[in-house]
Amino acid sequence: MPKRVGIIGVGSTKFGELWDYSFRDLITEAGTKAITDAGIDGKDIEALYIGSMSPGLFAEQEHISALVADYAGLSGIPATRVEAACASGGLALREAYIAIKSGLFDIVVAGGVEKMTDVSTESAMINLMGAGDQEWEAFKGVTFPALYALMTRRHMFEYGTTIEQISMVSVKNHHNATLNPNAQFQFEVSIEDVMNSPIVADPLRLLHCSPITDGASAVILASEEKAKKLSDEVVWISASALATDTIALHDRKSLSRINSSVIAARNAYEQAKIKPKDIDFAEVHDCFSIAEIMAIEALGFCEFGNGGKITEDGETALDGSIPINPSGGLKAKGHPVGATGIAQAVEAVLQLTGRAGRRQVDDAEIGLIHNVGGSGATSVVHILER
Amino acid sequence: MPKRVGIIGVGSTKFGELWDYSFRDLITEAGTKAITDAGIDGKDIEALYIGSMSPGLFAEQEHISALVADYAGLSGIPATRVEAACASGGLALREAYIAIKSGLFDIVVAGGVEKMTDVSTESAMINLMGAGDQEWEAFKGVTFPALYALMTRRHMFEYGTTIEQISMVSVKNHHNATLNPNAQFQFEVSIEDVMNSPIVADPLRLLHCSPITDGASAVILASEEKAKKLSDEVVWISASALATDTIALHDRKSLSRINSSVIAARNAYEQAKIKPKDIDFAEVHDCFSIAEIMAIEALGFCEFGNGGKITEDGETALDGSIPINPSGGLKAKGHPVGATGIAQAVEAVLQLTGRAGRRQVDDAEIGLIHNVGGSGATSVVHILER
Repeated sequence: MPKRVGIIGVGSTKFGELWDYSFRDLITEAGTKAITDAGIDGKDIEALYIGSMSPGLFAEQEHISALVADYAGLSGIPATRVEAACASGGLALREAYIAIKSGLFDIVVAGGVEKMTDVSTESAMINLMGAGDQEWEAFKGVTFPALYALMTRRHMFEYGTTIEQISMVSVKNHHNATLNPNAQFQFEVSIEDVMNSPIVADPLRLLHCSPITDGASAVILASEEKAKKLSDEVVWISASALATDTIALHDRKSLSRINSSVIAARNAYEQAKIKPKDIDFAEVHDCFSIAEIMAIEALGFCEFGNGGKITEDGETALDGSIPINPSGGLKAKGHPVGATGIAQAVEAVLQLTGRAGRRQVDDAEIGLIHNVGGSGATSVVHILER
Repeated sequence: MPKRVGIIGVGSTKFGELWDYSFRDLITEAGTKAITDAGIDGKDIEALYIGSMSPGLFAEQEHISALVADYAGLSGIPATRVEAACASGGLALREAYIAIKSGLFDIVVAGGVEKMTDVSTESAMINLMGAGDQEWEAFKGVTFPALYALMTRRHMFEYGTTIEQISMVSVKNHHNATLNPNAQFQFEVSIEDVMNSPIVADPLRLLHCSPITDGASAVILASEEKAKKLSDEVVWISASALATDTIALHDRKSLSRINSSVIAARNAYEQAKIKPKDIDFAEVHDCFSIAEIMAIEALGFCEFGNGGKITEDGETALDGSIPINPSGGLKAKGHPVGATGIAQAVEAVLQLTGRAGRRQVDDAEIGLIHNVGGSGATSVVHILER
């Protein structure tokens, strides 16, 4: 087994309502950028993993593994699509990592893509409910904002978390996105803006919700030996963890914590032989602003119930003790669901190699990325180190 | 890296129009049968891979990795869905194999499932076109029978293959299915029945086409050390190969051969250090009867252009020199697309352990399984040995 697996190149499209980009354009651009960034040639790539949640529902196209290999000029190579709803990107990173760990490949590309704006917003909401329990949730009329609204209410009830604290997540992430030229929403919002935005699912308002987004991201992974030959600024994957929970929210022991994230994080820290306090920054899955609070609790950056408090105290800001979502997060960078997990890896690599521009976290040496599927039925956690 | 990976248990549902089974029922039954067959406990399973082509389009349910883990009582474990259209099952087997090769896991379940009959036949045809090129094929009105009809015509033109020879594939596979209690169509058809069945896409007739099917299959994989401890009739995976081609048929160099199958087969024979003549039987991807002929050519069981001839000569019959699709194949066993690749592994294991009943191939020691996605954009080939 190769000792380590590293990332030697990254690329992303801009995120947003990209009406002049097709599904194919998006992933081809991201892949090309990653290959260029790695300084390799397409023919060096031995295998491809691609994460996408619902290309069948959003673009009537399945079989995107072969499609992406084809449009990247890589036809012939082994290509695999993986899916775990909004955690599809993180899963692609993980399966690419495992493929190199197996010793079968030395250089593998992992991509994520979603083209969401070619259908109506209503259709998009229905498609996204495929991430939840179709028979016990969607069929009853529950949407994703509603699921997270239930979790929000429970978190407020159990821990006294306030809607102001939850709103501060949105304010912070919008601020960070003003420093990210690829972000969908590069503008500030005030706490009043958030608190006065339209109700989506009480108590969640529009500015507590991540948007519908088109986008793609890609990273090039390599075995330790190859990585060292090809790059002098390798970012190492020191942990890769995946855990699941019940698909339906009502079957969980707790509505106020994401247990799959707790399991995956514990596993990841053990693999990397570090503690939460050793993490310099994290990209976490803030599909709704409450989700960032539940994430930082599950990842051990604070006690359970204290996520709102440390957000309010500014600890999660760019200059705080544990900067969360320097990229702007799903809330403001945008959330092309299958791309998100890979976009998090792209951001972590930029941070760890000092290429994050105006949103650079000082002395970033260890980063954590956290990608969630559905209402928490899947969590993927990776730790990256320079 | 573990030296070898073995299969220690298998299970399948019956295949057919199973209106009293839901998606969940199907995969839960197959998984439970495989666990029972392996003589292990659910808690011994460390990771899950599940292949399904279009649960989003057929059942409005994505995120089936966590769903299947949940309904199997395995919530918590790492669970990954993979997809490559009709090759999703073969891909699940391969990724489970890679996961064990990586040394991260010792016991992994690989499953495949598709619930296709809850939508109209017209919807099913549209959904299945997601396996082809949406923009260049589906949008122009091309269906899968039409794509394979084009390949059929070209094969007939280049090699003089006759429609009678192609029909003999259907006759043979229907015969084999009469010996398979899980098959969808357990009845004989004559060559006249095939030649007089309704035209679907000239020259392909109804009895040249595999059906729309509900079904699920599962296999339990284990590292060499664990496999030997847990079972005294392990079937070893001596090769796992995956290759791709262009998504659109018109971009291929040849319409009469499946190049991804040629590449995957060559790679598989190298891994197993054997030749095509060493194979005792094969389960191949006969989504249309022409596909079996192209498969046996790509796999090296005869020269290119000779597939019709050796079928006519009876070489591919149960008592022939290279029995093909003893299970009845996709044509008559049925083709629940995501399950097919795993169902092929189940059949191979039954054959190699002498449990194939009335369709048992004599002295079966080495079997090959061959699973294709779309019109050949993905091919997965595994070689299994007792």
